[in-house]
Amino acid sequence: MMAMCTALSAQKNFTLNDLLGGGNNAHNLRPESIYTVWWGNTALQTTPDGVKNLLTGETVVSVEQVNKWVPEHIAVSGHYFAFPYADEPIVQVMKGNRRVLVNFKTGEVVMDCTLPRDAGNSDFNSVSKFTAFTIQGNLYVSDAKGNQQQISKDGSTDGSDNIVYGTSVHRDEFGITKGTFWSPDGQQLAFYRMDQSMVPSYPQVDIFPRISQTYTDHYPMAGETSHQVKVGIYNVNTKKTVWLDLEGAPDDYHTNISWAPDGKTIYVFELNRDQNDMRLVAYSAETGKSLHTVLQECDPKYVEPMNGLEFLPWDASKAVMQSQRDGYNHLYLLDLKTDKLTQITKGNWVVQEFVGFNTKDKTLIYKGNESDPRRSCLYSISIKGGKSTLIGAEDGVHYASLSADGQQVLDQYTSPTVPRSINLLSTKTGKGKNLLTAADRWVEQGYNIPEITSGSIKAADGVTDLYYRMVKPVDFDPSKKYPTVIYVYGGPHAHNVEASWHWGLRGWEAYMATKGYLLFILDNRGSEWRGKDFEQATFRQLGEIEMQDQMEGVKYLKSLPYVDADRMGVHGWSFGGFMTTNLMCSYPDVFKVGVAGGPVIDWKYYEVMYGERYMDTPQTNPEGYAKCSLVSKAKNLKGRLQIIYGYNDPTCVPQHTLSFINACIDANTQPDLFTYPGEGHNMRGIKQVHLHERITRYFEDHLK
Amino acid sequence: MMAMCTALSAQKNFTLNDLLGGGNNAHNLRPESIYTVWWGNTALQTTPDGVKNLLTGETVVSVEQVNKWVPEHIAVSGHYFAFPYADEPIVQVMKGNRRVLVNFKTGEVVMDCTLPRDAGNSDFNSVSKFTAFTIQGNLYVSDAKGNQQQISKDGSTDGSDNIVYGTSVHRDEFGITKGTFWSPDGQQLAFYRMDQSMVPSYPQVDIFPRISQTYTDHYPMAGETSHQVKVGIYNVNTKKTVWLDLEGAPDDYHTNISWAPDGKTIYVFELNRDQNDMRLVAYSAETGKSLHTVLQECDPKYVEPMNGLEFLPWDASKAVMQSQRDGYNHLYLLDLKTDKLTQITKGNWVVQEFVGFNTKDKTLIYKGNESDPRRSCLYSISIKGGKSTLIGAEDGVHYASLSADGQQVLDQYTSPTVPRSINLLSTKTGKGKNLLTAADRWVEQGYNIPEITSGSIKAADGVTDLYYRMVKPVDFDPSKKYPTVIYVYGGPHAHNVEASWHWGLRGWEAYMATKGYLLFILDNRGSEWRGKDFEQATFRQLGEIEMQDQMEGVKYLKSLPYVDADRMGVHGWSFGGFMTTNLMCSYPDVFKVGVAGGPVIDWKYYEVMYGERYMDTPQTNPEGYAKCSLVSKAKNLKGRLQIIYGYNDPTCVPQHTLSFINACIDANTQPDLFTYPGEGHNMRGIKQVHLHERITRYFEDHLK
Repeated sequence: MMAMCTALSAQKNFTLNDLLGGGNNAHNLRPESIYTVWWGNTALQTTPDGVKNLLTGETVVSVEQVNKWVPEHIAVSGHYFAFPYADEPIVQVMKGNRRVLVNFKTGEVVMDCTLPRDAGNSDFNSVSKFTAFTIQGNLYVSDAKGNQQQISKDGSTDGSDNIVYGTSVHRDEFGITKGTFWSPDGQQLAFYRMDQSMVPSYPQVDIFPRISQTYTDHYPMAGETSHQVKVGIYNVNTKKTVWLDLEGAPDDYHTNISWAPDGKTIYVFELNRDQNDMRLVAYSAETGKSLHTVLQECDPKYVEPMNGLEFLPWDASKAVMQSQRDGYNHLYLLDLKTDKLTQITKGNWVVQEFVGFNTKDKTLIYKGNESDPRRSCLYSISIKGGKSTLIGAEDGVHYASLSADGQQVLDQYTSPTVPRSINLLSTKTGKGKNLLTAADRWVEQGYNIPEITSGSIKAADGVTDLYYRMVKPVDFDPSKKYPTVIYVYGGPHAHNVEASWHWGLRGWEAYMATKGYLLFILDNRGSEWRGKDFEQATFRQLGEIEMQDQMEGVKYLKSLPYVDADRMGVHGWSFGGFMTTNLMCSYPDVFKVGVAGGPVIDWKYYEVMYGERYMDTPQTNPEGYAKCSLVSKAKNLKGRLQIIYGYNDPTCVPQHTLSFINACIDANTQPDLFTYPGEGHNMRGIKQVHLHERITRYFEDHLK
Repeated sequence: MMAMCTALSAQKNFTLNDLLGGGNNAHNLRPESIYTVWWGNTALQTTPDGVKNLLTGETVVSVEQVNKWVPEHIAVSGHYFAFPYADEPIVQVMKGNRRVLVNFKTGEVVMDCTLPRDAGNSDFNSVSKFTAFTIQGNLYVSDAKGNQQQISKDGSTDGSDNIVYGTSVHRDEFGITKGTFWSPDGQQLAFYRMDQSMVPSYPQVDIFPRISQTYTDHYPMAGETSHQVKVGIYNVNTKKTVWLDLEGAPDDYHTNISWAPDGKTIYVFELNRDQNDMRLVAYSAETGKSLHTVLQECDPKYVEPMNGLEFLPWDASKAVMQSQRDGYNHLYLLDLKTDKLTQITKGNWVVQEFVGFNTKDKTLIYKGNESDPRRSCLYSISIKGGKSTLIGAEDGVHYASLSADGQQVLDQYTSPTVPRSINLLSTKTGKGKNLLTAADRWVEQGYNIPEITSGSIKAADGVTDLYYRMVKPVDFDPSKKYPTVIYVYGGPHAHNVEASWHWGLRGWEAYMATKGYLLFILDNRGSEWRGKDFEQATFRQLGEIEMQDQMEGVKYLKSLPYVDADRMGVHGWSFGGFMTTNLMCSYPDVFKVGVAGGPVIDWKYYEVMYGERYMDTPQTNPEGYAKCSLVSKAKNLKGRLQIIYGYNDPTCVPQHTLSFINACIDANTQPDLFTYPGEGHNMRGIKQVHLHERITRYFEDHLK
């Protein structure tokens, strides 16, 4: 399989400031766009001046008008306007911690509420107009007028760094992104309480005060004591909290909290610490008592509940849920009266996202990759399953936003040849109106653009298809031999090769192509969008299968006459930093130069949630941890390897990199090193440019 | 001035394992030696088997015999034998915390005392046979039988990490190396008590536990709150402590504690925090009250009391002291009855060490550099001053050990052409017997040895002589142009160029010469052995004058046809790391490559004692601190600069290097970086080899 998008005209070369998100010229090279928002079933377009009807162009509400109605010029740009009420002419405007709702027909200020300056994690319920928020570990709610209540734990107010209320828990794994969950009517608030007092703090150092200081960062390492999470339900009327009578061990995982539409029952996906036994449990919101176990899902490797229940708007006794129990992530209909689960979508492909309901036609809208594993296209399907209907283009990677009734969708996508396309489509017919097809600004501005292709090779198992992206040097001459750099991630829940613009090209790859390198990016087994077996192949031995597949990529590269097998490099970040370091140490005669960013070095230094899912614990899988540790491979290093890490990386803590450096010193091998003080797992903003200049220089120094 | 030591025969090249102290072949290349010790006025030679009379060869005491007398085979090697009693046939043998004294005529075990396992800072008084020692901040004394007393602070036992008894204080500045001082009869113990509870702990991180941990390291930064030191005197008979009634501010310095021979008076050199006002104060040992101020010494820049009083063995009312009040460090006779100070040595040269007394002839033995600033030769001089007598060779750098009566000296020296010479000399005539003249093992073993020369150039002031060492590449061809590396330290209390073997050549320089580099090492103004004006020229502006002088070295190098001015590098550690980084950023068009180790980056991150002596405080010298900070120069970096630091450096704390790295990132310049986890200010043992391989590789990568 092969596609191509290329332009050979040559005037000017890219700089990193052109190509990287943090670069100071990046904004001039992004494809044209329009910005949209739904008001119920009306599609609106936002502009700096306000909001207009997308189809008619008629002004709906202007910034100027809002600022006349609301004191202190709260509105800055129409891009920040929202329309939380489908049936009411109310615009929401935010400024800092102030939330204002204005009726834009009458000018009436419906709500004007300012939270305390240090409030975080604010969670607004549009029905009750209550807002939940946290301050330093404690949880509060505010009514529309700003009257605040502190949510107490049986009367105490023990929020702190050790005991944290109302925030995301379990280190954002299992689909968790927040810590408060309003009942549909906004009268009850489910929330997390995390006790991490028993979890050691990783000693992070802040170098910016007059004298460096440590700060607390509880980090549960694989096999070590983990934090303990409870779920409470606060009733804003009674001002009482009940605690869910959670079963299982104190360090189990509680995720995907979903309210029944009537607000009487709450559903929690509960997973044991070993992550191979998941139960969906229904609790009484009034008493906190467990009502019954709706379903259980076990797996010899691991179960991954990532999404909550989505109740049918027309039948509160049924919900859509996602599971990869048949080997691929699919949609299921769950009957909560009978606990019966009926599969809706099916096939050797995955549902990437449940988008929503078309309430009139009683269909589901989702994104899936049935037409090509690299794609993410939009479909509708009947609640009963059967044949799906394509919505919009059968190509590319789509982002979708549904109207209130789900009859229309604002569909934005890019494909290998399309920088951006925005369409307003019917979810029933899949057809509609093109709103924007953006021009290619790289071409318009006369840049030297490398040839970017995608194709597939077989995995090391000889059977499985793996997809790659290849970026050829600008002014490519097939009779020459080029230094070649593999960019790699390779870990779960991610992919690098997709049918988006330029096959998902990263800006740095174009920069390297400009400098005369060939780039190769292969999604090995273990990565996402390919089903459970594909992703779970790496269980208990992270890095092993992944490297075997990457070496198939090397084999393919060596078969190409224009690849210089004596000048092969590798670069990756995070899991890709692990892969890079691993490849440099495992195949020291293949890779001459590597740059590893924020790497995992030994999975025992990684956290409990992600780490134990794939590796179990150091206690139960000692041979796996030993085999996959790069500490013992440090002695094999021959080529030039630079490791770069954020000095304050809270994800792959510095102990990883420093342990490897120490092992190299002991073994008398010579890696190189760099760190970004104050930075975390990834560099932000303009530092991306510094970082990639650094990465590039290393290849220029040693691979060219 | 020019001298030369060279051998051009060429068989094999040095490795770092040959050349560095921590290298695994270094022991085979060290010049032959013999090991000596005094027993009163009898010179002994130690061997693994025991100790023999150096002149007659007669066995004095053997390891075998000691192990017959003392249970548990305490003696391992005669090299560890000592003879603390001039007039008694007693040998001291140590094993761990066990000290044994045996009469080697009778076999009688005179003392056998084992301190607790975790005892540190042990200080034995041979008269009373009491030993002072510390455990975790608390101070104890043990008698010869092992009966222990804890020294209390007015009844309390508050030793801790915050309040430390009996250790070196003031960060080992002002000549302080320990924290306990026995009265001559061993019945009273003067000791330091340091309260550092008010000093913030620099957050050092230990990466070696299962999960990284911080540990406490109180570090008073320039201009910030400093620790507070008191001096107590404990009487082992009354078991009472009196505290000296110290005058001045709580953060003054108290140094060079000296007991009067009668044990009734104790002398302390007291220095204000600004370090420009020093007083020598006499205290009553019985009451702790101040008796009187013996003398005061002020200086517009700083005063440096580095040595205590040395009482004349034949007149307890007079003592020798050292001062650089006339511009050079010299010996003075202090009459403690009249407080009169009489200069003994004089001239535009310095006394480097007071060695001791010849009690019969009533002369002083000292080391000085009057014949050449690079030398350290032995002299005797009358207590009345006048003409000195040279002892031994008028060349080289000497180490001396006096007999009990000071009539004889074991003199060991090296000179540019002499790897080692050991002599037994009369301190009266300066003549005696050569015991060993070691052969040159480099020549014997057929190494390619570079040509090493020394000479002088004028400083940037046009007047002052500066001395350099030049190391030419092996197989030097004057018609070629060589890449040239300046090795630099440049800070106070140190020198690099001296008249020792190969002019003080460091092993790495020979390695670099083997690889084809020319090395140049220049002692700029600010370094030691040249008098007060020379060293104090840098006051309040560290780095400025030093760099001007180094640039005179560059000018000289550029005048040499075989120096490639387009390939100049620089390397240094600590103050030399500061100089290297400074030169790279201040002269970006001169230096192409630099390697800076454990650098100071901004003096505000350095400690109070050393930092404020030279720079005053950030509050009183803001413009000096600003001018000398390399943070603001980070933007100038053009060449290749690698900074290397010990991850746990307690001296130049990591905040230095990390602040520079951060400034470079902000300014979009690209230094390189490396760190040694678990290491301090310097690398130990075999890690020296890894480090210097790394340093060398950087020049090979970028300068060759």
